[in-house]
Amino acid sequence: MADLQYVLESEVNTARLGILKTPHGSVETPVFMPVGTQGAVKSLFPRDVWETGTRIILSNAYHLYLRPGPSVVEKAGGLHAFMGWPGAILTDSGGFQILSLGHLVSISDQEAVFRSHIDGSLVRFSPEDSVRAQVSIGADIIMCLDQCTPYPISRDLAKDAVRRTILWAKRSRQIEIPDKQALFGIVQGSTYPDLRKECAIELAALDFPGYAIGGLSVGEPKEEFYEVLAQTVQYLPKDRPRYLMGVGHPVDLIEGVLAGVDMFDCVLPTRNARHGRAFTFQGPLNLRNARFTYDFGPLEEGCDCPTCAGFSRAYIRHLFVAGESLAWTLLSVHNLRFFQRFMARLRESLKAGTVQSFREEIERLYPV
Amino acid sequence: MADLQYVLESEVNTARLGILKTPHGSVETPVFMPVGTQGAVKSLFPRDVWETGTRIILSNAYHLYLRPGPSVVEKAGGLHAFMGWPGAILTDSGGFQILSLGHLVSISDQEAVFRSHIDGSLVRFSPEDSVRAQVSIGADIIMCLDQCTPYPISRDLAKDAVRRTILWAKRSRQIEIPDKQALFGIVQGSTYPDLRKECAIELAALDFPGYAIGGLSVGEPKEEFYEVLAQTVQYLPKDRPRYLMGVGHPVDLIEGVLAGVDMFDCVLPTRNARHGRAFTFQGPLNLRNARFTYDFGPLEEGCDCPTCAGFSRAYIRHLFVAGESLAWTLLSVHNLRFFQRFMARLRESLKAGTVQSFREEIERLYPV
Repeated sequence: MADLQYVLESEVNTARLGILKTPHGSVETPVFMPVGTQGAVKSLFPRDVWETGTRIILSNAYHLYLRPGPSVVEKAGGLHAFMGWPGAILTDSGGFQILSLGHLVSISDQEAVFRSHIDGSLVRFSPEDSVRAQVSIGADIIMCLDQCTPYPISRDLAKDAVRRTILWAKRSRQIEIPDKQALFGIVQGSTYPDLRKECAIELAALDFPGYAIGGLSVGEPKEEFYEVLAQTVQYLPKDRPRYLMGVGHPVDLIEGVLAGVDMFDCVLPTRNARHGRAFTFQGPLNLRNARFTYDFGPLEEGCDCPTCAGFSRAYIRHLFVAGESLAWTLLSVHNLRFFQRFMARLRESLKAGTVQSFREEIERLYPV
Repeated sequence: MADLQYVLESEVNTARLGILKTPHGSVETPVFMPVGTQGAVKSLFPRDVWETGTRIILSNAYHLYLRPGPSVVEKAGGLHAFMGWPGAILTDSGGFQILSLGHLVSISDQEAVFRSHIDGSLVRFSPEDSVRAQVSIGADIIMCLDQCTPYPISRDLAKDAVRRTILWAKRSRQIEIPDKQALFGIVQGSTYPDLRKECAIELAALDFPGYAIGGLSVGEPKEEFYEVLAQTVQYLPKDRPRYLMGVGHPVDLIEGVLAGVDMFDCVLPTRNARHGRAFTFQGPLNLRNARFTYDFGPLEEGCDCPTCAGFSRAYIRHLFVAGESLAWTLLSVHNLRFFQRFMARLRESLKAGTVQSFREEIERLYPV
């Protein structure tokens, strides 16, 4: 029985406000999880991540399995100790990476076989391998290995991926894991509503402590994404947290929350930071732009992050143009703080009944 | 009259202990200055630099002159405000960079002409340009433009460089600068003791608030370096700080201090950090080494830096192997702290009369 608890505090139509209690602290939901793929949120000290208001991060079992290997993380006392992160951690299973890194060799009901993106070696990876690796890594929330499908994909292939994802979820569910870890199932089914429904119902019957929705926002039209999402969520149990994987565009976060999602992760804030792009409530900024050469104001008026408190747009632009990696750090801090402020505003707007005007404001600034 | 003050507190043979008082705080000497070439100590927040015990850093007028340009730094309120550094700053004049970056086109008594390392454009740079740029940048200590010579060099060329360096120092000394800034002269003369002597005496007559020794440790044998250094220092006024430029190997720091030097700068701690090399009082470590894969101890037992407090050798190795830039940050913090601890031990060993055994210990660990 997992120690993880989800407390549904209130509902606004299909949207939800709640608390996710983990062995490493509680988080308000809906929540955004920054990504630390290789056991580090890129270019940031854990204390800098914490200072942005982040209390749960995502890391990737796929990457850590290949490097440094789960035995290193386990002997370090788990990923929290290894990376010095005091908050909660969720690890993804590797299903998405096996697909997206493009080195899949074959997939059978037994296992996936892929080539390592590091050294090209052949790796056999079963659902059991994924769960065991994630148990060694020790995240608070771990994920079943799934078969994530690209878009578009034929109905037959999508159906087979759903069948295998359910089969793997059943096998994963039978593995004994520590109480301090909670295993989530992942719903697949591409953009086929009946496949999504079947997958959600089958997984719900396995009584997971939480459910993820995978294989969305992978290239399908936005309207289809939002529709399939809403259709899927309705078959998930209300008393369990719901996690929409890899989604992070501001408008998509709002749509996800309106559909009833509680958790999100995305590389957008940190990846954009490394490319010089800042998120603000006045719209996006490209800090490489020459118009910031003499702009000595903060990135964003009213932002309470250490970057806005201590550094100007002109300085950050200089660092980008000069190729100084401190630029990544400064923008990453700001962008992560923006996403936490964004989620706080989203939760507040739900409570205040102003979510539609918040959505309009955000869509104007960040068109989809 | 410069606000800068040097207080000579005690002497141990030719070595000195003192206090350097600047408009941005006092520092104990002998002191080591980390390098922030482009207005940032690479990969570090100013507060992380401060936490290593650093109270004075070096930046490069040459780099800031080309990018972002002195007018940007000036309009930001000076380099302290621009980069958010509360401590003292020294800027180098550009003499060394014009030589070492290999783009010198011509040099006359009027000015140096070089190609920008950024865009290849032709730049004319006179001693007056250098002082004016440094006044705009606003460092506490600024340097005369000098003609730095490579090793080896003929006596005639060295003699001409000394003549020009003195000429430029005289012209620089005539420029009015704010009291809050102090202009240092730079002694050149390659490895020719009589040229060094001449240059030192001529500059001393100009009554600078401090003196640098340039053009040493540029490839000459160590014994020659130490000898020429000692011969040069004796002609510098005792009541002014002495700064040995670009020197940072641990043994060279000790030799410099024994010769009577008060200030040093070097990229060694931060550059080595980016290559995975850590300094410790048990000797150097290469964090990329496979032997650290399962080493969950700190970088250095007994080190009080945030890296040693929070992260293991195994984790830092993982970050290096995985190409995570946080690795640079973690090692830079440690190495800068090491250099500050090193200088503190060096000052203590002078007071305690144990500097020779300290030198032997360090030379065993870090052979020259």
